[in-house]
Amino acid sequence: MAKFFSERNLKFVLYEVHDVESLTEYDYYAEHNRKMFDMVLKAAGKLGKDLLFPVFEEMDRNQPELVNGEVQVHPDVRKMMREFGEGGWITARVPFELDGEQLPHLIADACEYIFQCANYSANAYLGLTAGAANLIETFGSKELYDTFTPKMYEGNWQGTMALTEPEAGSSLSDITTTAEPTDEGYYSIKGQKIFISAGDHNGVDNVVHLMLAKIAGAPPGVKGISLFVVPKKRLDDNGELISNDVVTSGVYHKLGYRGCPIAQLSLGDKNDCRGWLVGEPHNGLKYMFLMMNGARVGVGLGAASMATAAYYAALDYSKSRRQGRKVGQKDPTQPQIPIIEHADIKRMLLFQRAVVEGALSLLMQCSKYLDLQHVVSEDEKEKYNLLLEILTPIAKSYPSEMGVHAISQGLQCLGGSGYCDDYPLEQYYRDARIHPIHEGTTGIQGMDLLGRKVVMHNGQAFMLFISELQATISTAAEFPELKTPAQQLKDALSSLQEVTKNLLEIAQQKGAEHFLADATLYLEFFGIVAIGWQWLLQGIAVQKALNNGAKKKDLNFYHGKMFALRFFFGYEIPKTLGLAERLMQADGLTVDMKTELFND
Amino acid sequence: MAKFFSERNLKFVLYEVHDVESLTEYDYYAEHNRKMFDMVLKAAGKLGKDLLFPVFEEMDRNQPELVNGEVQVHPDVRKMMREFGEGGWITARVPFELDGEQLPHLIADACEYIFQCANYSANAYLGLTAGAANLIETFGSKELYDTFTPKMYEGNWQGTMALTEPEAGSSLSDITTTAEPTDEGYYSIKGQKIFISAGDHNGVDNVVHLMLAKIAGAPPGVKGISLFVVPKKRLDDNGELISNDVVTSGVYHKLGYRGCPIAQLSLGDKNDCRGWLVGEPHNGLKYMFLMMNGARVGVGLGAASMATAAYYAALDYSKSRRQGRKVGQKDPTQPQIPIIEHADIKRMLLFQRAVVEGALSLLMQCSKYLDLQHVVSEDEKEKYNLLLEILTPIAKSYPSEMGVHAISQGLQCLGGSGYCDDYPLEQYYRDARIHPIHEGTTGIQGMDLLGRKVVMHNGQAFMLFISELQATISTAAEFPELKTPAQQLKDALSSLQEVTKNLLEIAQQKGAEHFLADATLYLEFFGIVAIGWQWLLQGIAVQKALNNGAKKKDLNFYHGKMFALRFFFGYEIPKTLGLAERLMQADGLTVDMKTELFND
Repeated sequence: MAKFFSERNLKFVLYEVHDVESLTEYDYYAEHNRKMFDMVLKAAGKLGKDLLFPVFEEMDRNQPELVNGEVQVHPDVRKMMREFGEGGWITARVPFELDGEQLPHLIADACEYIFQCANYSANAYLGLTAGAANLIETFGSKELYDTFTPKMYEGNWQGTMALTEPEAGSSLSDITTTAEPTDEGYYSIKGQKIFISAGDHNGVDNVVHLMLAKIAGAPPGVKGISLFVVPKKRLDDNGELISNDVVTSGVYHKLGYRGCPIAQLSLGDKNDCRGWLVGEPHNGLKYMFLMMNGARVGVGLGAASMATAAYYAALDYSKSRRQGRKVGQKDPTQPQIPIIEHADIKRMLLFQRAVVEGALSLLMQCSKYLDLQHVVSEDEKEKYNLLLEILTPIAKSYPSEMGVHAISQGLQCLGGSGYCDDYPLEQYYRDARIHPIHEGTTGIQGMDLLGRKVVMHNGQAFMLFISELQATISTAAEFPELKTPAQQLKDALSSLQEVTKNLLEIAQQKGAEHFLADATLYLEFFGIVAIGWQWLLQGIAVQKALNNGAKKKDLNFYHGKMFALRFFFGYEIPKTLGLAERLMQADGLTVDMKTELFND
Repeated sequence: MAKFFSERNLKFVLYEVHDVESLTEYDYYAEHNRKMFDMVLKAAGKLGKDLLFPVFEEMDRNQPELVNGEVQVHPDVRKMMREFGEGGWITARVPFELDGEQLPHLIADACEYIFQCANYSANAYLGLTAGAANLIETFGSKELYDTFTPKMYEGNWQGTMALTEPEAGSSLSDITTTAEPTDEGYYSIKGQKIFISAGDHNGVDNVVHLMLAKIAGAPPGVKGISLFVVPKKRLDDNGELISNDVVTSGVYHKLGYRGCPIAQLSLGDKNDCRGWLVGEPHNGLKYMFLMMNGARVGVGLGAASMATAAYYAALDYSKSRRQGRKVGQKDPTQPQIPIIEHADIKRMLLFQRAVVEGALSLLMQCSKYLDLQHVVSEDEKEKYNLLLEILTPIAKSYPSEMGVHAISQGLQCLGGSGYCDDYPLEQYYRDARIHPIHEGTTGIQGMDLLGRKVVMHNGQAFMLFISELQATISTAAEFPELKTPAQQLKDALSSLQEVTKNLLEIAQQKGAEHFLADATLYLEFFGIVAIGWQWLLQGIAVQKALNNGAKKKDLNFYHGKMFALRFFFGYEIPKTLGLAERLMQADGLTVDMKTELFND
């Protein structure tokens, strides 16, 4: 079977870079140990290999269709959901006291990474259900929790996040779905939702939407948004599932990500759609952001996963396909060489590796911050919270944007074969294009980073980020092999600070629109710096391992890592030069461009 | 009907930037005039609108299938081929004396641009037929010409270029198809060909392959390759078409470009496949490069076309879709604004425009050089020949690579809708990915540019390129509005020269493999500079028009152009900084990376 991820690299990131074992020193994670982590990872690998990867292509070729009012998906989806439930994957992060596995995010997220490398769409069913259940667990009443989460945890009911509406995509303040209070404790829901991932399918017995709506009379804008649980079917007095007047009005035909349906929903056409309020009225967006932030980092992880699987597919092809000879070798009677021996193919593979392994390391960094939030003192919690706030848009968008490029380079390694469906690259290429869009487009992430996160609490999150990088740079500079990249990261970080300062001055002088006009480029710049940091952390782990007398069987891995690190600093960090040049100009070009000048 | 290209912009490039009218001062084009050119362009636009664009989606949704040994395509393909024939489009560049239209390449290529904006796949049938017929016309015997070209010119027979084989894609020296001489004047052909565009279909009565093969006993490598005409069906003594033992063994299922089949062919399974030699034995690759160079620039034009159509689709959506409010406008009771008013959307649209209009201008520059080759003295011919040599890899790869990015940004403008097949962006995104692959991958173009074109004739082609740019820079510097971009291009050109010098030194010191390791990045750098040149040329045309008192109705167009120019210099030219940084390092990283270090 084809390799879809590297266990060696994943363990390197978990154990050697981010030291997940250190978490077991805290009470909350004290019952775990490395042996158990290894077993969990192994089980995830097995599930990926046996159940998810084998239908990766099939689920694409037979895309979901709406038949008699219900979305039909691949028959294995039901099997998967049961397995996710029974295997404890949906409850991986749930505390022991609620019958969960209480795994560190680092391990649970690593498992989802494996699943997504095997089959991104398949894991969407799991991730959405876990996220929705977590929202009920965190903010919902005990009654809501008892009614909905057990079936979700078992994998019998699907969870979703239902935000988007025809006139409210990026602009959530414009949602118009209404919730009318009743005397019975529930609300009567009416409206339309679109682009709902896993919004309906026949692989489960019910679908539980965590839905944004406005209570009649609520203030306009985001301050009037409340969060509801709106199931597809509700329980009647006898505990039987009956229709809750949630109609699936359509399913999208998409470029990729076809293993998971995206549905349109119509709510309350018969005035019989019931929703139950989660938490306090008008606080819905705040609650939803818990799930949304998780989902954003989750999209980043999914993007890194796809790019991982695509990398190994490209690598496999590049090793076996023979074509051409070394440059300068003109003798056509000599045998052709594997294309991996061509420098340009190695360049494309190293690019993929630099993106994939850099992104994975950043995502695991976020998981570690989440874990530390659980176990440290209140003061320290805020530190990790702020770091997560500023890293979330990066963790979402860097893998999403660069994953598309990485997969495109993987496809390119295969030449014409990459363009045909005999190989999986064309599917990865289609699948991956969703990532810069869903859970907040790249443009939205850029505005979030520069307009909100960098300036929040007087720039405290940004300063914490800088401190983390400076600490890494100092440590790295002590290793002779890392002196140069450490200096390069230092320079790039200085440049980022200078650019930030310049933009903040522009905000003062010219206002918010000028300030944020190139926020997407700022995001790109920030992302390269953040990934450079993670490469330096990986470099430190390699140098430590080599200094401690690494095993012979690990040497290729460590030396390959160092090449990938050098690649990142040689080819990717220089991109910050052009970005800085542009961001220092900040001449308001796109602000000044008038709509009518696009005519003709 | 949706707009798929801008007539205003095309005419700007033809008449104001590249002054196609000036060609009519030469005898060869003296019978033409602007009025006729306008009529021809108008007819092309009508054909695109009436026949090609309406089935753009349909041809994608119903991809070609192999049924009973023949590839079935959309029924309109037959209609199109007849129209291409009867309308004189296949013979557009053929001299009057051979009953052609003797149009300048500038006009004929502009028409193909229109067709490709309407429906890229549809134009492939035309372009391949015209190219193949041109090869027979140029190098074939009168008998070959009389036998094959009339039916091709009429659009009854399809032409192809049949180069690739299972073991010979980028490495053409490894083809193994054999041609055994017979006493009857023809050769007996045996072999396999793959990835043959329009290699078989039921929209024509016959398919004429211009095929590379090796005559038995030929020297190994490229010096043993000959060119043959190998029809699917040959004429028997009664003038009836009979099978020529060319079997279609498969048709690819592709990511996109589905309106045109790509076939696998098996030749001479029954030892009854006849081929006729074109020109001299063993000169096949040289001949084929005439068609190949045309095809490479043609791919660039196709890529620019697709990106054009995608741009107008994205522009249309961005004007009509309302979402969100101006940054800083917090009042949710205010109506939402068209998304084109958001700076980030304008940035994405300007990026598309900068790529599309810059690429089109470069492609028309190439067409003009081709035209001048026809009419100038022998001495001057060589100048244009060299300029075409050095520009061909750029003209192929810049639109191909950047077209993919431009279309991706177009898709992004539509958000989730861009990912769904209710809008055409997802199709453009799939279609466009073929361009960096076919007719020589981007990697091959990079090697061609740096390893062959830059160094050819002691760097003469490169020096001519520099002279052309310097002339443009001098002219531009006289317009106050163009002083800054002129200086920017001057700096970028100096940097390109410095990088080139550095690479040539590396070639001396470390050999060809190090020299060419980053040829793809060099190509990217060169491409940005070349497009900067074309933007400056466009800027000069705008400034002249404004100085000459442009009509009021043209002002938005000219002012929009200047914004797109400023965008290119503000956002794209700075990318050369990072590329220069990398190319000056040239540390042989990818050369040194060993295959086994990719393990794990």
